[in-house]
Amino acid sequence: MKKSQGPLTVGKYLLDRLSELGVEHIFGVPGDYVLRLDKLIEQHQIKFINTTRESCAGYSADAYARLRGLGVACITYGVGINITNSLAQAYVESSPLVVISGTVGTEEFKMHPIMHHLINKSINSHGDQTQLEVFKNVTVDQGVLDNPAEAAQIIDRVLISCLQQKKPVYFEVPRNMVDQPLPDQTFRPLQWSYPPSDPGELQEGLEETKKIFAACKRPLIWAGHELLRFGLDKDLLQFAEAHNIPIVTTLLGKTVISEHHPLFAGIYQGEMSQKPVIDLVHQCDCLLSAGVIMHDLDTGIFTAKIDQEHRIKANSRSLSIDHHQFPNVSLIDYIKGLKKISLPKKEKNHQPCSARLAEKFIPKPNTPTTTKRVFECLQSHIKENNIVVSDVGDCLFGSSDLVLGQNAFLACAYFASLGFGVPGAIGAQIADPKRRVVAIIGDGGFQMTAMELGAAVRYHLDPIVIILNNHGYGTERPLLEGAYNDILDWKYSKIPEVLGGGIGIRAADEEQLESALKQAFKQRGDFYLIEIELDKLDFSPSLKRLGELLGSIVKAKG
Amino acid sequence: MKKSQGPLTVGKYLLDRLSELGVEHIFGVPGDYVLRLDKLIEQHQIKFINTTRESCAGYSADAYARLRGLGVACITYGVGINITNSLAQAYVESSPLVVISGTVGTEEFKMHPIMHHLINKSINSHGDQTQLEVFKNVTVDQGVLDNPAEAAQIIDRVLISCLQQKKPVYFEVPRNMVDQPLPDQTFRPLQWSYPPSDPGELQEGLEETKKIFAACKRPLIWAGHELLRFGLDKDLLQFAEAHNIPIVTTLLGKTVISEHHPLFAGIYQGEMSQKPVIDLVHQCDCLLSAGVIMHDLDTGIFTAKIDQEHRIKANSRSLSIDHHQFPNVSLIDYIKGLKKISLPKKEKNHQPCSARLAEKFIPKPNTPTTTKRVFECLQSHIKENNIVVSDVGDCLFGSSDLVLGQNAFLACAYFASLGFGVPGAIGAQIADPKRRVVAIIGDGGFQMTAMELGAAVRYHLDPIVIILNNHGYGTERPLLEGAYNDILDWKYSKIPEVLGGGIGIRAADEEQLESALKQAFKQRGDFYLIEIELDKLDFSPSLKRLGELLGSIVKAKG
Repeated sequence: MKKSQGPLTVGKYLLDRLSELGVEHIFGVPGDYVLRLDKLIEQHQIKFINTTRESCAGYSADAYARLRGLGVACITYGVGINITNSLAQAYVESSPLVVISGTVGTEEFKMHPIMHHLINKSINSHGDQTQLEVFKNVTVDQGVLDNPAEAAQIIDRVLISCLQQKKPVYFEVPRNMVDQPLPDQTFRPLQWSYPPSDPGELQEGLEETKKIFAACKRPLIWAGHELLRFGLDKDLLQFAEAHNIPIVTTLLGKTVISEHHPLFAGIYQGEMSQKPVIDLVHQCDCLLSAGVIMHDLDTGIFTAKIDQEHRIKANSRSLSIDHHQFPNVSLIDYIKGLKKISLPKKEKNHQPCSARLAEKFIPKPNTPTTTKRVFECLQSHIKENNIVVSDVGDCLFGSSDLVLGQNAFLACAYFASLGFGVPGAIGAQIADPKRRVVAIIGDGGFQMTAMELGAAVRYHLDPIVIILNNHGYGTERPLLEGAYNDILDWKYSKIPEVLGGGIGIRAADEEQLESALKQAFKQRGDFYLIEIELDKLDFSPSLKRLGELLGSIVKAKG
Repeated sequence: MKKSQGPLTVGKYLLDRLSELGVEHIFGVPGDYVLRLDKLIEQHQIKFINTTRESCAGYSADAYARLRGLGVACITYGVGINITNSLAQAYVESSPLVVISGTVGTEEFKMHPIMHHLINKSINSHGDQTQLEVFKNVTVDQGVLDNPAEAAQIIDRVLISCLQQKKPVYFEVPRNMVDQPLPDQTFRPLQWSYPPSDPGELQEGLEETKKIFAACKRPLIWAGHELLRFGLDKDLLQFAEAHNIPIVTTLLGKTVISEHHPLFAGIYQGEMSQKPVIDLVHQCDCLLSAGVIMHDLDTGIFTAKIDQEHRIKANSRSLSIDHHQFPNVSLIDYIKGLKKISLPKKEKNHQPCSARLAEKFIPKPNTPTTTKRVFECLQSHIKENNIVVSDVGDCLFGSSDLVLGQNAFLACAYFASLGFGVPGAIGAQIADPKRRVVAIIGDGGFQMTAMELGAAVRYHLDPIVIILNNHGYGTERPLLEGAYNDILDWKYSKIPEVLGGGIGIRAADEEQLESALKQAFKQRGDFYLIEIELDKLDFSPSLKRLGELLGSIVKAKG
């Protein structure tokens, strides 16, 4: 981390701190209240990435945060409230996203509080509080940097909240404060740690865990996204490898472990899962769910059948074993503590997921594309060093069956916000330029944020964007069909012509599909937009099962 | 208003009430929690208009509300929080926007509160309260329809708040409540009125007004957007006509009066105004500001020079004359009361704005387009029966000089939210299909919401969309220049090819400009997208003045 030059100011302290924490890019939309901060970023080693609008800056920064541990979006006041949904998504799915908003100067506001971009539903003597009040609902900590004497302390406190909780935080910077010097001109490394566990609870929890694992024959680990967020993926794997314990993951936690790893057995989502995974879960005699939040989608609409006996549930909220809880054991201490447990290896009782890779995709001549076959074709091209970003819809359910590398899958599989696909792909490609991004997006999600692909042209990024064009909100048709589920057909493959870069291809049959993917994956450099024609009632097997489950719930709940 | 068939349910009552109040279209994005309501709309006489995303549904419904007195957007829970900015805009600029969100069923939530789309930062026993808490910051009333026994009463109360205050409101409908029958099956017309004024204050205020007008020689009216919102435009004009009083308007209130009317003298925005308007204001000996909110943009960054003496300020908050206030006089009673004042006519002391129309636009051969000339050319084509929708930026400042018909201009000239242009044009064209919409948008605003033009294809709308392509955030360049102000150049005129409808034209010189506008205005039917090439440092005269004003403020407050 190189620090910026000149006297330490509120703005520089914030940027230097972010830089220290690994932030190399800030996504944003400029605006008059944030221009001084944007200028400071331009002069700093951190690179400013323009997005077309604030929600996309948020989605890109969220993807960046998921891959690199911290992501930042920078917006202007009031109209920047467009980022609320990105914050909500990051809040629900635990992504360490920092949103910085410039705002009107404190002195300006004192003179004339009725200014453009201000909402002024709640105000105090320093400024409009409304955006802060809105964002309090979707962040875990907030700092208004309206006093240079306190700014450094507030910046550190808020960033530590973000790092400790892996949830979004918010800074508001009045534009006259950006260049205010700090009283203490020394920049010290950030001191922080996770809140400690209660030693007695931790020890007892680990001892019980050891006993349970010693006594069982067919243990199983159900791994969730929190392991990735807290950087515990390798620790858990070490424990699993030491004892030969198979791992299934949630969909939100997909690729906690490389899916090519012999211990990886598949995605578990209750009755939505593939049959061998359901069998594995039903037959296990000890289940450790680690970093899992039991929401409806990851439990197959609460069809996950998990006995309370011999069940260990460790997540960021608490540890529980069977029927009792250890409220003061942190996920970090528990997972790291597991590595000290040493027991004989278990016998192999699962089919590695990577066995599926044996099937080769051979395009059938004159055969229209189907969702199922698209994913089979994709699987034959996607390598361990690709990152897959999925939007919500059948792209997500179809993607669940892809066998991918470690930490190589991004999707809002819990909050389920349509439109993450394109800006998520941009954020991921910037966060990790070495791994080529493959974005898989339905037409509904794509239309929400399509034009963010302009960033691929501007910043010379080369994601491969796959549009599954099933002509509507396909996941909703089985629930309650109506014209509202239809979407206007765009000529998606012409979008690169509008953007002035990239290559667009439309594929309507298997041979065109194979040819398009072959071309796109052949070499890096250009972004590809591949539109795949699908029947509007063609669903992936996984979505068919979900649709039936949801349909029955809608009917039952009347 | 035709009522829907079958037993009166929570959903039907809401739709019947909206229909009674003149709503014929609801803009929205479907989602599983709102599907039952979407289905009900499909079965109702109200038409559902699909937008690509929630913020655009909000912008379109806002435009609809400004033209028709009520606009409605319908979204699904959690991810629908994308509409927050549209609500903020409607709140700040007083647009009667109703947002309806479907949400998880109350019974479902009791069983399993951890569901997709839920944020759950604040919950109660019925459901997730977080979206409600967010929207409380940008709405004046809210109703959660989780109890059929109270639903009708809540619907009426919340809608009356919207009608009385002309500001946005919010309904949340758990999906299991939509079809619940109401205890009282009778649908009665909505009874409502504006809160009454204090009779003594009103009488005194009007008498004082009469005396001031009787004594002055050069009175002037400064009319603002609230007159349009409260439907007082014709009342005010009647008063002005009876006494031959010239009218200037704010930019947000542009077209309160037809700008072809002989009493209309121009837009007053402090030092940003045209010289004859500044002179008129400075020379007047009595100023009635009616329905004006004195924010920075409408006052030319608070450079509006308005003496406190002989100044009457009537808006939705209060009436004040000279140095004293009448806090309990409503804008409605006051403006309607003015009509009872009868005095001799004043002498004409102003130049009607329509005099500008005499200039004919003659394209100069081989001459690159400039912003100034674009607006001169537009003026020669735009008729009194066009509606102009402007985005924020130089499109807005340039538009301020156009001479337009009555209630024929929509722009978020106070909240200044980029991206309103395209969805605003869609909403306006649907609200008033007889008047053809001309949307004027910069490249920055256009890129935010461009693809909403798909609705023009889907619903056979024919707005003329003008893109002023100055290759960046032009309004920000004079403030603080940097690469963050640059925007990727799209081939805008190719967008109709992507959308599968409409006609795209690029104009780089005056002859191409004239030819493109001539073709577009010739007949109705197709939407046009006309991209006009401009130099990145070419500004309208109005923007140049604003840029200088803002730049000096940034420096001074620095």
